[in-house]
Amino acid sequence: SIARRSRRLATIHPQTSLFKPLDAFPERHIGPDDVEASAMLSRLGYESMDAFIAATVPPKIRIAANSIDNTSIPVLSESELHARAKELGGENKPFKSYIGMGYHTAVVPPVILRNVMENPAWYTPYTPYQPEIAQGRLESLVNYQTMVMSLTAMDIANASLLDEATAAAEGMVMAFVNSAQKKRSFLVDSAVLPQTIAVLRLRAKGFGINLVVRDAVTALEDKELRSDLCGVLVQYPDINGSIQDYASLAESVHTAGGLVVCATDLLALALVKPPGEWGADIVLGNSARFGVPAGFGGPHAAFFAVTDRLKRKMPGRLIGRSRDATGEPAYRLSLQTREQHIRREKATSNICTSQALLANMAAMYAVYHGAAGIRRIAVKVHGYTQVFRSAVESIGYQVVNASYFDTITVDTSSVAGGASAVHAAAAAANINLRQINDKLVGVTFDESVGPSDLVTLVNVFASAGSASKVSLSDLQEPKGIAVPSILQRTSEYLPHPVFNKHHSETEMLRYINHLASKDISLIHSMIPLGSCTMKLNSTSSMIPLTWPEFSAVHPFAPQDQVKGYETVIRELEQDLCKITGFHSATVQPNSGAAGEYAGLCVIRAYHESRGEAHRDVCLIPLSAHGTNPASAVMAGLKVVSVKVLSDGNLDLVDLKTKAELHKDKLAAFMITYPSTFGVFEAGVQDACKIIHDNGGQVYLDGANLNAQIGLTNPAICGGDVCHLNLHKTFAIPHGGGGPGVGPICVAEHLAPFLPSHPVRPAKGDQAIDAVAAAPFGSASIALISWAYVKMLGGKGLNDSSKIALLNANYMASRLSDHYSLRYKNENGRVAHELLIDLAEFSKFGLKVNDFAKRLQDYGFHPPTCSWPISTCMLIEPTESETLEELDRFCDAMIEIRKEAEDVITGKQPKDNNVLTNAPHPLSVIVSAEWDRPYSRETAVYPLPWLKEKKFWPTVSRVDDAYGDLNLICDCPSVEDFASE
Amino acid sequence: SIARRSRRLATIHPQTSLFKPLDAFPERHIGPDDVEASAMLSRLGYESMDAFIAATVPPKIRIAANSIDNTSIPVLSESELHARAKELGGENKPFKSYIGMGYHTAVVPPVILRNVMENPAWYTPYTPYQPEIAQGRLESLVNYQTMVMSLTAMDIANASLLDEATAAAEGMVMAFVNSAQKKRSFLVDSAVLPQTIAVLRLRAKGFGINLVVRDAVTALEDKELRSDLCGVLVQYPDINGSIQDYASLAESVHTAGGLVVCATDLLALALVKPPGEWGADIVLGNSARFGVPAGFGGPHAAFFAVTDRLKRKMPGRLIGRSRDATGEPAYRLSLQTREQHIRREKATSNICTSQALLANMAAMYAVYHGAAGIRRIAVKVHGYTQVFRSAVESIGYQVVNASYFDTITVDTSSVAGGASAVHAAAAAANINLRQINDKLVGVTFDESVGPSDLVTLVNVFASAGSASKVSLSDLQEPKGIAVPSILQRTSEYLPHPVFNKHHSETEMLRYINHLASKDISLIHSMIPLGSCTMKLNSTSSMIPLTWPEFSAVHPFAPQDQVKGYETVIRELEQDLCKITGFHSATVQPNSGAAGEYAGLCVIRAYHESRGEAHRDVCLIPLSAHGTNPASAVMAGLKVVSVKVLSDGNLDLVDLKTKAELHKDKLAAFMITYPSTFGVFEAGVQDACKIIHDNGGQVYLDGANLNAQIGLTNPAICGGDVCHLNLHKTFAIPHGGGGPGVGPICVAEHLAPFLPSHPVRPAKGDQAIDAVAAAPFGSASIALISWAYVKMLGGKGLNDSSKIALLNANYMASRLSDHYSLRYKNENGRVAHELLIDLAEFSKFGLKVNDFAKRLQDYGFHPPTCSWPISTCMLIEPTESETLEELDRFCDAMIEIRKEAEDVITGKQPKDNNVLTNAPHPLSVIVSAEWDRPYSRETAVYPLPWLKEKKFWPTVSRVDDAYGDLNLICDCPSVEDFASE
Ligand SMILES: Cc1ncc(COP(=O)(O)O)c(C=O)c1O
Ligand SMILES: Cc1ncc(COP(=O)(O)O)c(C=O)c1O
Ligand SMILES: O=C([O-])O
Repeated sequence: SIARRSRRLATIHPQTSLFKPLDAFPERHIGPDDVEASAMLSRLGYESMDAFIAATVPPKIRIAANSIDNTSIPVLSESELHARAKELGGENKPFKSYIGMGYHTAVVPPVILRNVMENPAWYTPYTPYQPEIAQGRLESLVNYQTMVMSLTAMDIANASLLDEATAAAEGMVMAFVNSAQKKRSFLVDSAVLPQTIAVLRLRAKGFGINLVVRDAVTALEDKELRSDLCGVLVQYPDINGSIQDYASLAESVHTAGGLVVCATDLLALALVKPPGEWGADIVLGNSARFGVPAGFGGPHAAFFAVTDRLKRKMPGRLIGRSRDATGEPAYRLSLQTREQHIRREKATSNICTSQALLANMAAMYAVYHGAAGIRRIAVKVHGYTQVFRSAVESIGYQVVNASYFDTITVDTSSVAGGASAVHAAAAAANINLRQINDKLVGVTFDESVGPSDLVTLVNVFASAGSASKVSLSDLQEPKGIAVPSILQRTSEYLPHPVFNKHHSETEMLRYINHLASKDISLIHSMIPLGSCTMKLNSTSSMIPLTWPEFSAVHPFAPQDQVKGYETVIRELEQDLCKITGFHSATVQPNSGAAGEYAGLCVIRAYHESRGEAHRDVCLIPLSAHGTNPASAVMAGLKVVSVKVLSDGNLDLVDLKTKAELHKDKLAAFMITYPSTFGVFEAGVQDACKIIHDNGGQVYLDGANLNAQIGLTNPAICGGDVCHLNLHKTFAIPHGGGGPGVGPICVAEHLAPFLPSHPVRPAKGDQAIDAVAAAPFGSASIALISWAYVKMLGGKGLNDSSKIALLNANYMASRLSDHYSLRYKNENGRVAHELLIDLAEFSKFGLKVNDFAKRLQDYGFHPPTCSWPISTCMLIEPTESETLEELDRFCDAMIEIRKEAEDVITGKQPKDNNVLTNAPHPLSVIVSAEWDRPYSRETAVYPLPWLKEKKFWPTVSRVDDAYGDLNLICDCPSVEDFASE
Repeated sequence: SIARRSRRLATIHPQTSLFKPLDAFPERHIGPDDVEASAMLSRLGYESMDAFIAATVPPKIRIAANSIDNTSIPVLSESELHARAKELGGENKPFKSYIGMGYHTAVVPPVILRNVMENPAWYTPYTPYQPEIAQGRLESLVNYQTMVMSLTAMDIANASLLDEATAAAEGMVMAFVNSAQKKRSFLVDSAVLPQTIAVLRLRAKGFGINLVVRDAVTALEDKELRSDLCGVLVQYPDINGSIQDYASLAESVHTAGGLVVCATDLLALALVKPPGEWGADIVLGNSARFGVPAGFGGPHAAFFAVTDRLKRKMPGRLIGRSRDATGEPAYRLSLQTREQHIRREKATSNICTSQALLANMAAMYAVYHGAAGIRRIAVKVHGYTQVFRSAVESIGYQVVNASYFDTITVDTSSVAGGASAVHAAAAAANINLRQINDKLVGVTFDESVGPSDLVTLVNVFASAGSASKVSLSDLQEPKGIAVPSILQRTSEYLPHPVFNKHHSETEMLRYINHLASKDISLIHSMIPLGSCTMKLNSTSSMIPLTWPEFSAVHPFAPQDQVKGYETVIRELEQDLCKITGFHSATVQPNSGAAGEYAGLCVIRAYHESRGEAHRDVCLIPLSAHGTNPASAVMAGLKVVSVKVLSDGNLDLVDLKTKAELHKDKLAAFMITYPSTFGVFEAGVQDACKIIHDNGGQVYLDGANLNAQIGLTNPAICGGDVCHLNLHKTFAIPHGGGGPGVGPICVAEHLAPFLPSHPVRPAKGDQAIDAVAAAPFGSASIALISWAYVKMLGGKGLNDSSKIALLNANYMASRLSDHYSLRYKNENGRVAHELLIDLAEFSKFGLKVNDFAKRLQDYGFHPPTCSWPISTCMLIEPTESETLEELDRFCDAMIEIRKEAEDVITGKQPKDNNVLTNAPHPLSVIVSAEWDRPYSRETAVYPLPWLKEKKFWPTVSRVDDAYGDLNLICDCPSVEDFASE
């Protein structure tokens, strides 16, 4: 490895001008400095970065050198960025929101805000694919599942889905699948949230489901509908606040052979009979009011719970309890192989990145408050609603909904000017109410409302109604709760020990940090997960996120109150268009997979607009990520696979054959670039031409955009639409499994079809329906990518891609002396990631997993394993890792290769060696027995630097098969605990 | 132990009123809930809390039950507190400061802000008295020392002192002591900061030093002065910006037999010849411009460095490298026994709590920027100064100082209106300049100034001078630096590896977190350090601290710009008066010890005002904290010790004898209440009466105020003045050894004597001189205590003291079945802490330290050891720990008692047993050899819960003697590293 003496000294250049800021971000973001980069280039045999890039990226697809530079995307320093963010934050007006409609102003307990949301130990880890080094967040996600199961009274819950609307869509599709895709009608009650209905509409279209939006109870009398009914969705309490008894509806739906899907509210369920007690089959909703900021629409975790018989059909991530190699209990991601590679076109859901960080926040909120605390909050919210109801009634308004938890729909007919008079009075008091129509106004309460807020609110209605002002003493505290008695909750909830011991801040702090201490994250070492781009998630970009001017904004606040957010989003979309070479963009999709679905729907809408709605074939290479075919299915496309050559490139002959074969029905071709094998295919433009020649559109999966910026782009490659994973290339932290943002960028001809939203309709009439609940999806975290782009500027973005390529090629060069590098181009170069093939070891009993688990002993998160090729590891370093860190990782891999040699030569037995026994947690080392053919020291300190810096797996190797067979997905119960 | 099933469920009371906030702080702050408290009370045999308190606190000193309640101190919820803090923050005006005078607007690198300053792993640990579980911050403090040594070119540095002014006072006293207290004159150059001179004045008075403030170079020609000269203090660069060559001054001082003390600026030393290269003996200053917010004056770390021959006389905390039991290198606090118990009246410095957290921030800043980065920042700051200088000269102003680094003194005689015209123009542009006099205006630049700030500033001078406006392009970038060539720095600095590898944010983040991972803190488990009150440091109280409206305020900003801060401080002072029963208070002293010194100076001034300046005897019990006698010495008092009885109480007979003996010269009596033995002495009022009867004043050391609030108070006990440790009782986090705030509260007759400040003079003319550099000391963290008091309210404060007493008594009850409890009152009760005597074990070879180190293996920070009694442990749980945590700690102690039994009975040999070998770090466990009479499992998992939650010491027992003999206090050098 390269000498370390002069490391990074060169990075700190003397300033070229006194007036240039010193807190420039690029040198903080990019790991290797000039000295290191030159050293790496020489090792690879290049005299310059340009020469290296020329050998790595096919010349045909290169864009002009100055396409992405500080002229096209000007650069801001860290402090300049904060000043700009403050300015834009000031353009979001701090109105108090009573809009409701699924969004609330949460009260985030400070200990959770600072120690979870603002803590890189929680926000930087990846999805817990490696349970031995992820027991902390796995436990927290099980807490989330348990909380959902307990509050909803359902048998099993996942953690988590993207938002309430897409969760409802998943519920609808489950109902459809449950009918063996035979019954095509799905009934939606008209008092369901409009954004949910919009998302269902598009999803129904893809699956050919007949979506019926009507009053559910009445509609169920319709015989014809009943005969074709796969399920019904109700909102409980509904959009206007009513709580209906759906017990007989459930019976009726079940008699008709359908499933009951219920969208609900966890806080209401503290007082209201849970859906699991009246027959719901699928229960879902948004958990954000449990301590997650509104953030102009997200990110929030959607919960999703089902009855036992549906559990193996449930989409999303399910955390279960399994056992480790020593028989001790251990958590793991159940059925995780579904995600990347199997199911593919057999899948009916494409969910991958979800909302782990927000689910963890909500779970911690429940842990902190406990059952009694949550009940107290529910009683308060309901109590304010009761007081408000009496107050407006005594002013002379009529209330429309008879039953309620936190929402009142007020009939304003009694006052001059009706609803608009009330809204005007509200605006004057810096208050937003729900705008329903001329007559009706909606008011929803949440935990953040205090006594003076309430008085101000009542006085808004008083002044509009020309009544006299009230003060707090005029308002009577209610006695008891007003939920209709048969709908009151009587069953207990959250009795589990974890929800009953961490109620002091000290205990909570220790619990949060104890869990964090079990998990490897970017605060420890590189996470070289191929295809995941685990780069720096800078503090500067994270800071504005939790400023109240961004965190406390309702997604449906009037447009003139959210100018700051709109500028951020517009600027980000514009920069993404520059980067991808496309015309228009939307940040609405809240994951990469959601972007794929959105992009394919846009393509379908485009074909439809040209009278080619019948185009429904989608070509997808076998090497594609599992979400690609799943998204195609969801968009109503038929997947046809395309072969890949032994050099990793697409089989253009096969592509041509299939494209021509399906010429008349060809809708789209999906391709990842550089490919999931880490290869820049020189023929990408030819491939795209073949598609275009046959009437198709090209969808470019942008997961690998980090290899491209300023060097090439999806447009020049021939794409028509692409999604980007802002949680990869654009530095949104992965949060331990989400959140993410999956914007799509499109060529001009596709721009009119970008998704609309019922509350913020798109211009024109060609837009597809919404793909997410909120108009701008997980809007608040778009701030992170916006800051990332601004602080790197065009040059920094371009340099980042160059160094990402250089880092990967440096590793490929070091590792290929010891392992077989599966693919490289004719110049010997890989793209931004590399595939190491471990097939040769299988005859000695060593599998990919043995190498991966052994890497844990070296303090590293293993690379992506067995995907896209089952015998391989896919390694992606990103530009943020320094040469020293790359070397540490390579040293570890090389040492493991030596350890494997001992197994090959028989020095260590096949069934008892340092690889197959890996990882080695403390329990194993401490134990008195030691019957292994290697020392404890070799087991845990195989390289000297581990003595100074070691990360300990907390359990032995987790048994995957056992866990998948025995799904146990909740916390130990009180009884288990008592018997301990 | 008490059953856990129902733990804490009771805490979450149903709300008594809908309109009461739910985020009430008391139930989050106080560990045990009602159920637990009742259980503890019954174990102790009480039916009620009142009965328990009656048996614990002597009736004579009880105050009325409603003295401290929510009427006297109203309560705010967490969110109400934040709203109030926002409001007050808004009353601090965000002017751009060029005032200088030792304070700058720092640019805090976001990664350090969030991961050090806002990270409980860094801000909650105690002073690193237990090196095996503190290697992280010890390493960081060594980085600090190394940085100071390298930049100043001195042989050794400490970490750290309280502020520049008190550091200068320490320097003066060192010079005095160096003359064997024979030479009484200390010369201070008139261009030293005024706050430094004020602090020196008071300190000189205490030591009987003759302070001469004159132009140093001229004054040194004075023969008489030379013959009595112990030292000279110069400021380099000086207050007006000049950099003088002090080489011949140094020679002249040395010839006269004195020491050269130099106050300097670390950033300047990147360009300017370091004091160590021209003969300074002691070099000191404020390190805050290295990334620590101005915070209206602090907290900041003062640095202090000396030549090799002075190293053992250096005050403050010195971190050194020693070795552990296995011979591996390990850091430790050198000479730490100085602090609490030895030296006492032989000490000439009382420094104890210092500024560890801020020293760590400054060190991390240097680690992040490295030598090249620091140089670049210095060049920038200097460059702006150069540009500004030319610009104002070309407008027609004269510049007074010929040489400069970052400060320019402008003569405004050329413009109409002079200085006031310039200040008026500045105010109109939201700018503060240094107000010198009618003619001269000072301008100091720092890292935060950007191009547009500079243009605005120049235009302030242009407009006052009726010149035309300039724009950036009119300003010429300088070529080279303007420091006089013989004063330019030529030597290298910060070549050590640690300053040359962590320059990317990823590397920095990992380094910060790696160090944090080695240290035990409140995020792990209770820290039952007696006399230290390690309670919850709540997130809510920490959050406002880093809001820019509080963090970016210059301490000398005009009063009308700092109304928010003034309200916070006034409210806090008023609440502290209510709590202590006193009349007036000041937060100026920035540690407990500084409070003691301030209080005693106030007493002396009071006597002096009554013509009794000769009163100079101070009675102090032998049980007093070491700072008490040291402070007395500093205030010019002679210490006379008072005996303590075998029941822990003060020997009133001895007290009376001594008081009467010294009747004519009796100045003061210092007493800690409850005593350092954890006893509420019933005779405290009698003791105070004896003192008053003999003409003395009573100083009450309030370190133990946590036992008192709402139950008794220092005034009713008979005190005239007390200090409080806000970093104990009032929840300022201990920061790993500081910061702290040590306000004093005084009875009405002492109020006129409270300290003044040269920039913010006190009303009246009786005030003593300043005791700290800033008018309100470490003003910004006063916010934390202010928030603490407001969020608990009177009732919560009172309940906290009650539970603190209950927790301690519960532990005393459990532990006294297994250990000898040294003291208790006639009812069997202790106060808020308890002394366990381990003397009985010494004949079996087991010392206090063996029990302490063994506790580390159980995941606990040991209690205070061997103080105030060498064979004892002093245990203080505080109110924030839950019953479960108390039980965990008691279980550990009880298990260790069993382990000791094995040594007593000879089952384990005296020299090889689980106690004397403790702690057991991983290196020991992993090693193949195991020759101990107990298993690895017993060594590290002696109780079952340790398998789930274990904290690992990172080194074996550290060798104290070796470390004190071989002081090595800097980082390994490049050469050491290269040879690794
Ligand atoms: C190539 C590729 N496509 C799509 C996705 C899906 O993105 P997301 O997880 O954000 O839904 C991934 C995620 O790993 C990916 O690697
Ligand atoms: C009884 C007592 N007095 C005084 C002090 C000194 O306080 P500080 O460390 O803040 O200077 C302490 C600190 O531990 C103490 O315990
Ligand atoms: O368990 C005991 O309290 O001694």
